[in-house]
Amino acid sequence: MPMGTSSSVESLYAEVQQFYARHMHLLDAGDGEGWALTFTEDGSFAPPSLPEPIVGRDALATGVNKAAAALAEAGEVHRHLLSMVWVQPREDGELSVRSYAQIVATPRGGSPRLHLMCVCDDVLVRVDGELRVRERRVTRDDRHP
Amino acid sequence: MPMGTSSSVESLYAEVQQFYARHMHLLDAGDGEGWALTFTEDGSFAPPSLPEPIVGRDALATGVNKAAAALAEAGEVHRHLLSMVWVQPREDGELSVRSYAQIVATPRGGSPRLHLMCVCDDVLVRVDGELRVRERRVTRDDRHP
Amino acid sequence: MPMGTSSSVESLYAEVQQFYARHMHLLDAGDGEGWALTFTEDGSFAPPSLPEPIVGRDALATGVNKAAAALAEAGEVHRHLLSMVWVQPREDGELSVRSYAQIVATPRGGSPRLHLMCVCDDVLVRVDGELRVRERRVTRDDRHP
Repeated sequence: MPMGTSSSVESLYAEVQQFYARHMHLLDAGDGEGWALTFTEDGSFAPPSLPEPIVGRDALATGVNKAAAALAEAGEVHRHLLSMVWVQPREDGELSVRSYAQIVATPRGGSPRLHLMCVCDDVLVRVDGELRVRERRVTRDDRHP
Repeated sequence: MPMGTSSSVESLYAEVQQFYARHMHLLDAGDGEGWALTFTEDGSFAPPSLPEPIVGRDALATGVNKAAAALAEAGEVHRHLLSMVWVQPREDGELSVRSYAQIVATPRGGSPRLHLMCVCDDVLVRVDGELRVRERRVTRDDRHP
Repeated sequence: MPMGTSSSVESLYAEVQQFYARHMHLLDAGDGEGWALTFTEDGSFAPPSLPEPIVGRDALATGVNKAAAALAEAGEVHRHLLSMVWVQPREDGELSVRSYAQIVATPRGGSPRLHLMCVCDDVLVRVDGELRVRERRVTRDDRHP
């Protein structure tokens, strides 16, 4: 079987996966500032739970830090697991990336549960050589139309 | 640590992952025709729920479209999440790929549940430069011998 | 979007994923000896359930074989699903790899459940050209401090 000729796309795929892995470990560790830096300065995140997107690194970091404090208070750990990462390069050079996100919640001393099943639609761009999220829209399967 | 010399195998690995990501998004979106095109024309799929494999794109597409209609009727979303994708190139140039498949089901307004845990054994081939499934066998862990 | 210049790192990323896929299929198939060979000869594994790490291939293999026998006796299948694999090459050439591990348990004739949610911290090294685990530490989210 001849190899594909698209080796740079394949290289990009691994880079996207590594990007998301670090991104989610920062999120789940409650490192709001570190996580916000993986967005562009004007990056936006439209979660299913809010009527308006969160825009800009300060707001993104604050949101994560608040959520982390609430989880610590509740004695619960959340993990965000992306899978089926589908990278679609666009003509303008940006990347449309669709993936599934499992959110797993584990209470201290209890059993883990699959808290939410979501679809994540990102626009990734490259800034100073590094991938960044410019736009994220997340939809929940339990609110699927 | 010196890098491996098998850069084309590594490139192939990313290509397989990207193939499966698109493949599963098509399946879960209920796009039977699009999904069937990711099989070879004579592609076969032996699911655990049927006594005989489904063979050929028409039959594959029909199966997905029927399942999608039934899920919509039931108000439930299913997601197929492959993981631990183990690619084994064979001497004839085809690829044996073993992976785990989690099927997550979410009812409208309800909590997601892990519906089935399966092992997926595929034979992938390249047709006109693109990966295609020629043969798929799926086994359910709850029916493990 | 220009591609990254770190193509050898991206190649390494795919190699790590393929390594873990095979590693976990061997584990879940109960192949203690095959699994132990994916560790270095002095490889250690500190699971959350034991006060001391398991060290060396004989001990590693024995542990898996015993666990597999107990699961077969109980009529239950366990699967280890790594995700969000974050590879951090170190200056000494070894790799620090952090990932999430879902352990899914399925009783014969029953429904799968998310048994444990863990974080896996590995040190991977290359021996005779092949990746090996030299050290593994696993923490459970339900025992998160």
